Amino acid sequence: MDIREQHLSNLEWRTLIDEFEAGAHDGPIINIDPDDDREYDAIFIGGGAGGRFGSAFLRARGGRQLTIDQWPFLGGSCPHLACVPHHLFSEAARELDLARLLAGRFWYPEFDENKASILDMVELFKSGRNSAHAFMNYQSKEQLGMEYILNATATVIDAHTVEAAGRRFTTKNLVLGTGATTRLPEVPGIDLPGVFDYATLIEELDYNPRSCVIIGGSKVAIEYGSFFQAAGCQTTILARSPLMTGKGLHHVDDDLREYVVHGMRIRGMEIHDGTETLEVLGDTRATGVRVRLSDGTIRDIECDMVFIGTGERANSDEFVKVLGVEVDDRDSIVVDGNMRTSVPGVYAIGDIIGPPMEMFKARKCGMTAARNIMGEDYSFDFSEYPDFLHSTYEVTWVGLSEREAREKYEDVIVIQMPPPGVPYGDIPLPCAEGTMLMAFTHPERTGFQKAVFDGATRKLVGAHHVGYGAKDGFQYLDYLIHSTDGLTIDQLAEMNELFLNPSHFIQLSRLRAGSMELSSL
Amino acid sequence: MDIREQHLSNLEWRTLIDEFEAGAHDGPIINIDPDDDREYDAIFIGGGAGGRFGSAFLRARGGRQLTIDQWPFLGGSCPHLACVPHHLFSEAARELDLARLLAGRFWYPEFDENKASILDMVELFKSGRNSAHAFMNYQSKEQLGMEYILNATATVIDAHTVEAAGRRFTTKNLVLGTGATTRLPEVPGIDLPGVFDYATLIEELDYNPRSCVIIGGSKVAIEYGSFFQAAGCQTTILARSPLMTGKGLHHVDDDLREYVVHGMRIRGMEIHDGTETLEVLGDTRATGVRVRLSDGTIRDIECDMVFIGTGERANSDEFVKVLGVEVDDRDSIVVDGNMRTSVPGVYAIGDIIGPPMEMFKARKCGMTAARNIMGEDYSFDFSEYPDFLHSTYEVTWVGLSEREAREKYEDVIVIQMPPPGVPYGDIPLPCAEGTMLMAFTHPERTGFQKAVFDGATRKLVGAHHVGYGAKDGFQYLDYLIHSTDGLTIDQLAEMNELFLNPSHFIQLSRLRAGSMELSSL
Repeated sequence: MDIREQHLSNLEWRTLIDEFEAGAHDGPIINIDPDDDREYDAIFIGGGAGGRFGSAFLRARGGRQLTIDQWPFLGGSCPHLACVPHHLFSEAARELDLARLLAGRFWYPEFDENKASILDMVELFKSGRNSAHAFMNYQSKEQLGMEYILNATATVIDAHTVEAAGRRFTTKNLVLGTGATTRLPEVPGIDLPGVFDYATLIEELDYNPRSCVIIGGSKVAIEYGSFFQAAGCQTTILARSPLMTGKGLHHVDDDLREYVVHGMRIRGMEIHDGTETLEVLGDTRATGVRVRLSDGTIRDIECDMVFIGTGERANSDEFVKVLGVEVDDRDSIVVDGNMRTSVPGVYAIGDIIGPPMEMFKARKCGMTAARNIMGEDYSFDFSEYPDFLHSTYEVTWVGLSEREAREKYEDVIVIQMPPPGVPYGDIPLPCAEGTMLMAFTHPERTGFQKAVFDGATRKLVGAHHVGYGAKDGFQYLDYLIHSTDGLTIDQLAEMNELFLNPSHFIQLSRLRAGSMELSSL
Repeated sequence: MDIREQHLSNLEWRTLIDEFEAGAHDGPIINIDPDDDREYDAIFIGGGAGGRFGSAFLRARGGRQLTIDQWPFLGGSCPHLACVPHHLFSEAARELDLARLLAGRFWYPEFDENKASILDMVELFKSGRNSAHAFMNYQSKEQLGMEYILNATATVIDAHTVEAAGRRFTTKNLVLGTGATTRLPEVPGIDLPGVFDYATLIEELDYNPRSCVIIGGSKVAIEYGSFFQAAGCQTTILARSPLMTGKGLHHVDDDLREYVVHGMRIRGMEIHDGTETLEVLGDTRATGVRVRLSDGTIRDIECDMVFIGTGERANSDEFVKVLGVEVDDRDSIVVDGNMRTSVPGVYAIGDIIGPPMEMFKARKCGMTAARNIMGEDYSFDFSEYPDFLHSTYEVTWVGLSEREAREKYEDVIVIQMPPPGVPYGDIPLPCAEGTMLMAFTHPERTGFQKAVFDGATRKLVGAHHVGYGAKDGFQYLDYLIHSTDGLTIDQLAEMNELFLNPSHFIQLSRLRAGSMELSSL
């Protein structure tokens, strides 16, 4: 289907994608400019976050690109299977959490456990996701001027040749961005029906689970587990390391971690670390998990859903085979800061180069590849970045944990809420946007926050937040604290806060900044 | 009651304030250091936001202060009557809005109008507010080292002499911070029972109103009105100017305004502008309002509550009388950028110096007075600041509106979501933290956002957001765009976003930043 000359509206795109999904069409969707006779500067294999942003940037720079994706839409797994549903589920978890906590009070009725349903939310997501997909197709074509082929397999012939939709394309450069997928733990029973990862949960779930065992302790485990529990599905997490202490998450503050994990436990989740999963139990479908606990005892935990939260590995096999790109011991394609692989003219971006498997990284990888392809020498260092996850809360952090700061600096100043030694439940603070109903009913559930300063330079070196509404701000805090000059407590004290701000860092800084000799608060 | 040597915990403070409220104690609460024989650098009249932050800063600088407040707690009207209850009510409005929209779907039962109650929320707030008050007393004494006298009237004798708690105190400087109160419109019937402002709503409401007429179109009118409507109280706003167009709010973008006001209307509020309120109707209590509408017709609108949202005026009378401080035509005390009044040695801070009556301004006024008193020449310019209000949404803005930008710059670039010309309901974007459930059920209610750039310098000159979770970030955006160098689209494009961020400014900027010649998106 050649849609080059059609200028579909968002709603028309939505209809078309719905029809592809229903099998009313097949074959490639082709958006190629027949009047452009330039060779492609880059062909992007995969039109997910990295491929789409890289393509947009390359076009903006005046280059020519072609993006090929197997799905009938751009945007990749995030809006189809991964981060967008996770955000819907996490918002549902938050609302379910409130509905339970306030059951029988105010306008909240008694909470009906049977009305909460994982399946409902999965189906809600699937009913709406093609709207967002439609917008990606629309925006990429009409606003960003991209060329693309969708619903087609890209066959890489060599570093400068790709076949798709029955045609052969040549290109100066190739950009690999086909992402990563869950690698299942190698235990018996892992292939049974009833075992899901984040992707198959969306595509295959057809019942409403009432009990779940999660194998693994990744972000996905915490996020989906918190949602499952809130939705009335008794959830047990079997992790190797204590949650949020593994190598996958850096800079996690001990107090932040304590608040988050404690919060999961008091909401009814069972969390075991130091475990080894031995087997998924069941004949025709999963009915439980056999695990060796940290004390060596072996236990069978019954459930009607098993969920895999052990993390992902790169989809690099084909590129190793055809192009010979170098990969590391986890199959991630090895790149330099310019996103160049070991093969000249071949770049790799996004999850396929390994962790962190985050949106900002994928998109900026794409931008980085585009800039280098267009002749700029541009490097992207993602060793430092702000991070977050959801429990029933938004949990956000940037810079050093208090412990890391104390290892690095002699005079560490900490400003936190509630203050050290004051039990969570004794004060409704942090009273903040998003936790007001909790502050006045369950003060111990209003969240936690901490800012860490180097007393000598007065600079903010880390910030940590559990609550709601601080994510946006942490993006800018990341920029400010990692800028050349950094951000001092004095500069914070002079900012204009928007009260009741979710993080109280500005006003709390102002309470201390008057002093030449800083002290904690 | 001398509590100097008692080191009350937060819970003990809470009990004490409860007892004062119940009348079990009276007389002043005295926290004065008998071992400090220095003269006071400043006596703060009023221990609200400005007085408390000014006192903390002055102490941190090594000065000596005394803060006197009429209430048995520090913190002032914000946590007692004003911004904290407003935030609780606005969060309730948001939850009630969801509960109505999703009624009968998922775990949301049919919405029972009779269970939603303004009175319940007022009582919830009152049951909890002393905890926050307790923390202010605790923190101010134990962590910030302040001296104070609470539950006492301060009688100003002259610029250097104050009497309170039966004692006379001398001071080098006086800092006036007793705030502002609603000035009632001068119409017949305004004193009837059933007529409330934000303060009396908290202290006096003893029934659950089912219909309300709001006189005035201030922020308070929008915020409380949105809550009333969400809580099942049919609400009509009678404003002079169209909402959000008055002088009180600067830099309001037309599209942002349209989204917010349209959102209030589709939720059932009646909004009239160009009105003149003639009379509050009723014999023994308010039963309606007589108004002249913009077309000249006179109409009686029935209601069982009248709410005043016309704005506030400074509590300056006594200081004019005793000290002769200069005031403007709205009774606000006139100060310079250093917070100096017309009387040497007398400073004024916070709402008493006039609008904006916002927390950041009050606190930074306090800090400014403290710095000048301690010998620094420090000026505070609050002509530019980020601003926000609540409808059922958080509405946040900073810098120039698109219209203002077009008046100032030749080449204005706008990046917004939904894009211009795409109906709100056609796409679920902005899909964002806090609006996910709406994105997948009522896409037209997911909010609106816009970033405005000067194409020539590539600098961000304004940002506008309707949704949730962007407030914190706007504090830092305000800092960045008003910094010497400003913030360019290229710097935004290089930041590390936390997806799904409430504002999509970083990633949307990245889609355009590749181009030397910027264009709108």
